[in-house]
Amino acid sequence: MTTFSFKDVDDAYGRVKSLILKTPLVSNEEINKITKAKVFFKLENLQWTGSFKLRGASNKIGQLTKNEKKKGVVAYSSGNHAQAVAYASKLNNISSTIVMPKNAPSIKINNTKRYGSEVVLYDPASGVREDIANDIARTTKKTIIKPYDDLDIIAGQGTAGKEIAEELLDQNIRPDVYLCCCGGGGLIAGTSTYLKHKFPNIEIYSVEPEEFNDTQLSFRSNFITPIKKGAQSICDALLAPQPGDITFAINQQTLTDGLTVSDKEVKSTIVVLAENLKIITEPGGAVAASALLNKKLDVENKTIIVMISGGNIDGELFSSIAKEK
Amino acid sequence: MTTFSFKDVDDAYGRVKSLILKTPLVSNEEINKITKAKVFFKLENLQWTGSFKLRGASNKIGQLTKNEKKKGVVAYSSGNHAQAVAYASKLNNISSTIVMPKNAPSIKINNTKRYGSEVVLYDPASGVREDIANDIARTTKKTIIKPYDDLDIIAGQGTAGKEIAEELLDQNIRPDVYLCCCGGGGLIAGTSTYLKHKFPNIEIYSVEPEEFNDTQLSFRSNFITPIKKGAQSICDALLAPQPGDITFAINQQTLTDGLTVSDKEVKSTIVVLAENLKIITEPGGAVAASALLNKKLDVENKTIIVMISGGNIDGELFSSIAKEK
Repeated sequence: MTTFSFKDVDDAYGRVKSLILKTPLVSNEEINKITKAKVFFKLENLQWTGSFKLRGASNKIGQLTKNEKKKGVVAYSSGNHAQAVAYASKLNNISSTIVMPKNAPSIKINNTKRYGSEVVLYDPASGVREDIANDIARTTKKTIIKPYDDLDIIAGQGTAGKEIAEELLDQNIRPDVYLCCCGGGGLIAGTSTYLKHKFPNIEIYSVEPEEFNDTQLSFRSNFITPIKKGAQSICDALLAPQPGDITFAINQQTLTDGLTVSDKEVKSTIVVLAENLKIITEPGGAVAASALLNKKLDVENKTIIVMISGGNIDGELFSSIAKEK
Repeated sequence: MTTFSFKDVDDAYGRVKSLILKTPLVSNEEINKITKAKVFFKLENLQWTGSFKLRGASNKIGQLTKNEKKKGVVAYSSGNHAQAVAYASKLNNISSTIVMPKNAPSIKINNTKRYGSEVVLYDPASGVREDIANDIARTTKKTIIKPYDDLDIIAGQGTAGKEIAEELLDQNIRPDVYLCCCGGGGLIAGTSTYLKHKFPNIEIYSVEPEEFNDTQLSFRSNFITPIKKGAQSICDALLAPQPGDITFAINQQTLTDGLTVSDKEVKSTIVVLAENLKIITEPGGAVAASALLNKKLDVENKTIIVMISGGNIDGELFSSIAKEK
């Protein structure tokens, strides 16, 4: 059992508020018409570094001791946490090393380098990123900044939920449903804790790629269950093989159920969001919207919050998805 | 001399507030770094119907008499005003006829039809859209909803400026420069009036496509000056051949000067905005950002407001621009 609460998110917000963008929460009449619901999209793709990950990384890195900061940090990530750690490290004048899969999107690798990190590429078919990062940490005495299974990271990501709650309460709106993507589960753990506190009756659903439904499987079976080997998805940001110990303990308390979407559904959603919301989303950033648009649950006449978690997609992939339509 | 003032914008906001999206004003650390300035983007591409035009159309159409509403409306537009009039008419249960050039972007023609308007296509090489619309108005007794040279339209568009001003004042920020696209001049007339009232020292620049620099020419010569025949630009939303009488009278009072950008500069800006802000912009919607990114004026250490006016671009054009890069 964890003692994580909305207060941890409030505290984190005090620390990161000036270091992040308060991202917009927007509605779109066309989407409301299509879904027969009142939908609010939280645009974390507009967050600096292109995803919500900056919230957690800023909260964690800001709290390192002087000595830890001097030695630097190491992180492993498919790309969004990588960029966030790189950016936050630069801001803090900290050296950073990031372990990334060699097949990560070019935009993510290039930005991580551009923010000043040393990038160590590995082959995900043969290497284990945690092991590589642990080795680096051992030899360099750098601090590991975990991507999700860390209370400071979870509290940081939760600040997106605080912004959503405050904006809705300002407008006197009570949401019925919250849909959020789920990789390792940090974002949904932090945001769901906050939203559940402010709106106790809200239903919260994790959304995962079909073959990476570890949180759905784990939630339904009540214990941590990994996905099958050989699973594939275009959602490069959501390929965690199983939930984190800490994130799962939190999500078990806050979730209503887990939903999944196919790559095909994600692709068509990226196009719908571009055409109607005029935003660029990456595959992992569009899964929650995809669950909505592909009617994975009944939303008629309800007020729905949809997390758009990131927008770091290579131009070539975006164009090819737009063309497929 | 016109008596148009910020009060007209305040009044318009009371009428349209519940009918439009209060669009986000966002900053982006990467753009700030590139420009060495503090830049705020007003995302009217996220406005319902994909452009700011819904503000003016809602303000105008909402004020028609019962009899006028019964007879319906007619408008002429390259596409954004078309969609806005179509959408606002549908909301008011008014029949609408829109005269559009046959080479308008497909997304604009299709959306205008989808919102329920009767679309009349004409050949811009041989027909004059105002004449066609006037003929329709005469025979059907429908009211013409002008695209810009109308005080209610200008006041409606100005509400985007009111939102900008209020958000900046909330954060205690005083902008130094406002960059806004300019076709017929309605958006910049309305928003500049409001911003100049709240921030008397602000410098305001219209931004136009190189060959459609009628507002720049007119402002500098002090009388309405049309562009040369045969001018070309990919900025389909900004192809007005000369400023409106009313808009120019206002803009003469509020502008500091007029700037221009080339199609090539606009294309590279669309890519920069997609990669960094994660937004889709249409060519006309990106000209103000293009003036900023292509250093058309000195912005170092200044606080700059950039209007992103629309995002209605065909997927094919967007993809081809992304590829050209």
